Amino acid sequence: MIVVETVKEVREIIREKKKSGLKIGFVPTMGCLHRGHVSLLDVASKLSDYVVVSIFVNPIQFGPNEDYEKYPRTFEQDKIMCEKHNVHMVFHPSVKEIYPEGFSTFVEVEGQIGKVLCGAKRKGHFRGVATIVTKLFNIVEPDIAIFGQKDAQQAFIIKKMVKDMNIPIEIVVSETIREKDGLAMSSRNNYLSKEERAVAPIIKQALDEAYSAFLNNEIKASSLKKIVEKKISSCPLFKIDYVEIVDTVTFFPVEEVVKPSLLAVAAYLGKTRLIDNVFLTK
Amino acid sequence: MIVVETVKEVREIIREKKKSGLKIGFVPTMGCLHRGHVSLLDVASKLSDYVVVSIFVNPIQFGPNEDYEKYPRTFEQDKIMCEKHNVHMVFHPSVKEIYPEGFSTFVEVEGQIGKVLCGAKRKGHFRGVATIVTKLFNIVEPDIAIFGQKDAQQAFIIKKMVKDMNIPIEIVVSETIREKDGLAMSSRNNYLSKEERAVAPIIKQALDEAYSAFLNNEIKASSLKKIVEKKISSCPLFKIDYVEIVDTVTFFPVEEVVKPSLLAVAAYLGKTRLIDNVFLTK
Repeated sequence: MIVVETVKEVREIIREKKKSGLKIGFVPTMGCLHRGHVSLLDVASKLSDYVVVSIFVNPIQFGPNEDYEKYPRTFEQDKIMCEKHNVHMVFHPSVKEIYPEGFSTFVEVEGQIGKVLCGAKRKGHFRGVATIVTKLFNIVEPDIAIFGQKDAQQAFIIKKMVKDMNIPIEIVVSETIREKDGLAMSSRNNYLSKEERAVAPIIKQALDEAYSAFLNNEIKASSLKKIVEKKISSCPLFKIDYVEIVDTVTFFPVEEVVKPSLLAVAAYLGKTRLIDNVFLTK
Repeated sequence: MIVVETVKEVREIIREKKKSGLKIGFVPTMGCLHRGHVSLLDVASKLSDYVVVSIFVNPIQFGPNEDYEKYPRTFEQDKIMCEKHNVHMVFHPSVKEIYPEGFSTFVEVEGQIGKVLCGAKRKGHFRGVATIVTKLFNIVEPDIAIFGQKDAQQAFIIKKMVKDMNIPIEIVVSETIREKDGLAMSSRNNYLSKEERAVAPIIKQALDEAYSAFLNNEIKASSLKKIVEKKISSCPLFKIDYVEIVDTVTFFPVEEVVKPSLLAVAAYLGKTRLIDNVFLTK
């Protein structure tokens, strides 16, 4: 496994690999790798010959009051984890390498898809995501790239961007990996105190309860959302950011779940913002 | 020479050509090809093995009151001209192929570079340009792409976008080609009446006069601009849209021409908007 810090070097190596006919798989990450990332690495290994992981905490996807500065950086551990899981190249650029002075070009997926859920709550977040992903795609030029279902809206937005911009890369979205108690794996789980960690699985339990009701023919979105809200609010450590059900094609909130929909939640547990989601389909 | 109308077909053919080791050259156009375009085709032929020309009148780079509908379309003549000039592939997609229903992703080069000259006068124009060029680059995946110096601000913006977004394509900007009387070649010259065509070279004459003054040590931007304005206004058929001198690095208007600068002009001749420019360097 090699660690590369410059765009130029990535490009030179990848072009050689492609010339040899290797299929390039790519997993963009912000580091602090956990089993959720590992599952993406394993999918990449299965689907390609040469796996590239980027580790870059992307400043432009954080709002001014968000956790860019304190976002966990665990590069030495990340390297070991990548090596263990058959990664061939870790791309670990500096902020200056990615955003040199004068940088001012942005990609934005407009329309309803970015206006709900985290798009409504984190202004500019997905513009930062679309921009860095476009840049990384142009640098790594992979054949296939893997994203996690935990960040459901991100995955939808990336897929839309790839389609709209004719980016010649196959996007694979891989299932959410969870702790034994149901908590969705996330680098931000590291922020949780012991007390907070103990109640964190309530989010997944709330989604499960709503999903069960849906399977029992509750299709009213307001009722399903109420189930989630009630369950999460039962623990005073939580402050709900949003609970929403959106159509997975139009991304408009639905009143009744009669087409494939996404039930998504964001909640603060203390100062830590956690997200999770479940598809409402039978 | 082949004519291709779908993204899928372009991609398949280009990938085969690349596998054979051919270097792909690309000239994006809106058709209505003239000698200015021909010079770009010839540069592409010189610098690459397989030349692709796109012919697509891009709706999203026209403002609501601009000339999208009446923009000249001369595809049969264009094909003949491409064939004559050793083009291998003409990509001629429909609007629907490029902007299918639901399309909503845009690329924008922000900052000062887009805020002056045509960027100030044609709101959204360069966003439309950056978006279509990104898409065409992703579709054609050329090694090199050629743009004309006549659209100076566009060329600067494309170069900035390529740098900012790490697009792995070399950009070549090729000199402005002119009619014998000095008028810069442009598809929009077709709009001019006989009377208008007769006075059209005044724009170039105005730029030449200012350039001569500059060579004679006039560095005050206001004086140089006045020379241009006076010359153009001497003909009542013209209505000046802007005359501006900007630093070619910062794109801020300058008061004195002490660094490489661009003197650019846009003027309506009747209903036709013409642009031209000259670099102020010694």
